Amino acid sequence: MTRVERSLSAALGLAQGCDAPPNLVNAMRYAVFPGGARIRARLCLAVARACEEDRPTLSSGVAASIELIHCASLVHDDLPCFDNAATRRGRPSVQRAFGEKIAVLAGDALIVLAIQSLVHCAERAQTRLGPLILILSRAMGAPSGIIAGQAWECEPQVALAKYQRAKTGALFAAATAAGAGAAGRDADHWHLLGERIGEAYQIADDIRDVVSTEDEMGKPSGRDQLLGRPNAVAQMGMTAAVAKLEELVRAAIGEIPPCAGAADLRAHILAEANRLLPRKLARPAA
Amino acid sequence: MTRVERSLSAALGLAQGCDAPPNLVNAMRYAVFPGGARIRARLCLAVARACEEDRPTLSSGVAASIELIHCASLVHDDLPCFDNAATRRGRPSVQRAFGEKIAVLAGDALIVLAIQSLVHCAERAQTRLGPLILILSRAMGAPSGIIAGQAWECEPQVALAKYQRAKTGALFAAATAAGAGAAGRDADHWHLLGERIGEAYQIADDIRDVVSTEDEMGKPSGRDQLLGRPNAVAQMGMTAAVAKLEELVRAAIGEIPPCAGAADLRAHILAEANRLLPRKLARPAA
Repeated sequence: MTRVERSLSAALGLAQGCDAPPNLVNAMRYAVFPGGARIRARLCLAVARACEEDRPTLSSGVAASIELIHCASLVHDDLPCFDNAATRRGRPSVQRAFGEKIAVLAGDALIVLAIQSLVHCAERAQTRLGPLILILSRAMGAPSGIIAGQAWECEPQVALAKYQRAKTGALFAAATAAGAGAAGRDADHWHLLGERIGEAYQIADDIRDVVSTEDEMGKPSGRDQLLGRPNAVAQMGMTAAVAKLEELVRAAIGEIPPCAGAADLRAHILAEANRLLPRKLARPAA
Repeated sequence: MTRVERSLSAALGLAQGCDAPPNLVNAMRYAVFPGGARIRARLCLAVARACEEDRPTLSSGVAASIELIHCASLVHDDLPCFDNAATRRGRPSVQRAFGEKIAVLAGDALIVLAIQSLVHCAERAQTRLGPLILILSRAMGAPSGIIAGQAWECEPQVALAKYQRAKTGALFAAATAAGAGAAGRDADHWHLLGERIGEAYQIADDIRDVVSTEDEMGKPSGRDQLLGRPNAVAQMGMTAAVAKLEELVRAAIGEIPPCAGAADLRAHILAEANRLLPRKLARPAA
């Protein structure tokens, strides 16, 4: 079991108890396990390691919080009033498996758990707690976190760059900043790396939406076209989109601040970028 | 402008910015201003004063957080999948005024803001931050916060006492505990007072649901009967319900831990209890 899974499991344990309504707790667990690729959480840990983490419990904890926030956002995105998604990660979405009410409440409770579990992991590093919570809450809320990103879908005029930066970029930026912050480094220097990775991820996701099968995605493909959402492949064509992705990955790597583990972090980012591409487009591992 | 309103206003300021989607930010503000009686926030401050608060910025901040959590829960309770409420505080509910999507997101963002704004107010009292966030998150999440309370409505079998303790009692208990914690006192000693006040509030709310007009309530009355929800007046009759309320208020006052401002706190609780009763049942002020 990896660090991320162990830390998520410990967090979910906080939500249980004989006083808990069973459906809510089961839905929370269902939303988190088994997970997706845990990309954001593993990125957070890769940064913490690159910064020579001195508080591994704290960095594992904040990585789990990043993942809990991601899971919460998926649960609410899938609600009938938004994407009305029937499947997620290859099986029924939370709203289909547990109903709409429990999906609203499980998303709410996962947001709370992301913060609560971090407090427990920060017991021996109290001065780092406040800054880390600010990183997480800015990545979630208004004006420019993922909730704000989703809210741009409710505006008559959408600024595409703002929308994508909030909806996708904010949590990647929080992942790198929080990884550094948990290791006692200046988190501000680490935001930009995550933002760039978020931009690359957005394009990779657009590419996968066009060329992957539902089996590979774990959710329906071709959704962007169906829902009239912007997609880089539709806008610039596949060849240009793949070239743009490679350019963004290079740009991201160029943003790695000086740190002891820069080489490993670079390798991590490259491997992830290759993994994100559909099999038919991915390059053989170097 | 009172301390609570000032502190809420400062919190909402954190959610604004030129990058913010206007509907989301407007809905968040609409959900918070103009407010109801701010009962929980004023209780939190009354406890902080009774404990000779030494960090007034922190106690104002945590009182605002308590109120933000309450507002968030109202926004989600009013969603179509739950109460589908058309009005709240005498005007359209958030879901009617801004639509269901924005109501989901505004509730989410208010939960986040409750935590984020507290971090800002705790800048000079960092060792108190972690314990205060734990108080707030336990009052919100699973196993026994208000979200769990709402989730009991989705269970085939509802344990009424657990349901009410989570749905109503948890935030009152957090209000008294957090007021004491913000003043540097042992918050654990202050939970029970809030729990008792929550029980009294629940009965007062049941009484008002039966005898108040919609004008007095700011929301439809007679909802418990309509929605088949348990109501103390329906169960024991009006006279017994009012007697029970008075007994619970006395019990609450008996739970005030030793503190410098106990007399003022007692007076605050009595005045609030009287104010909660519909005019036709309230006793003339002593």
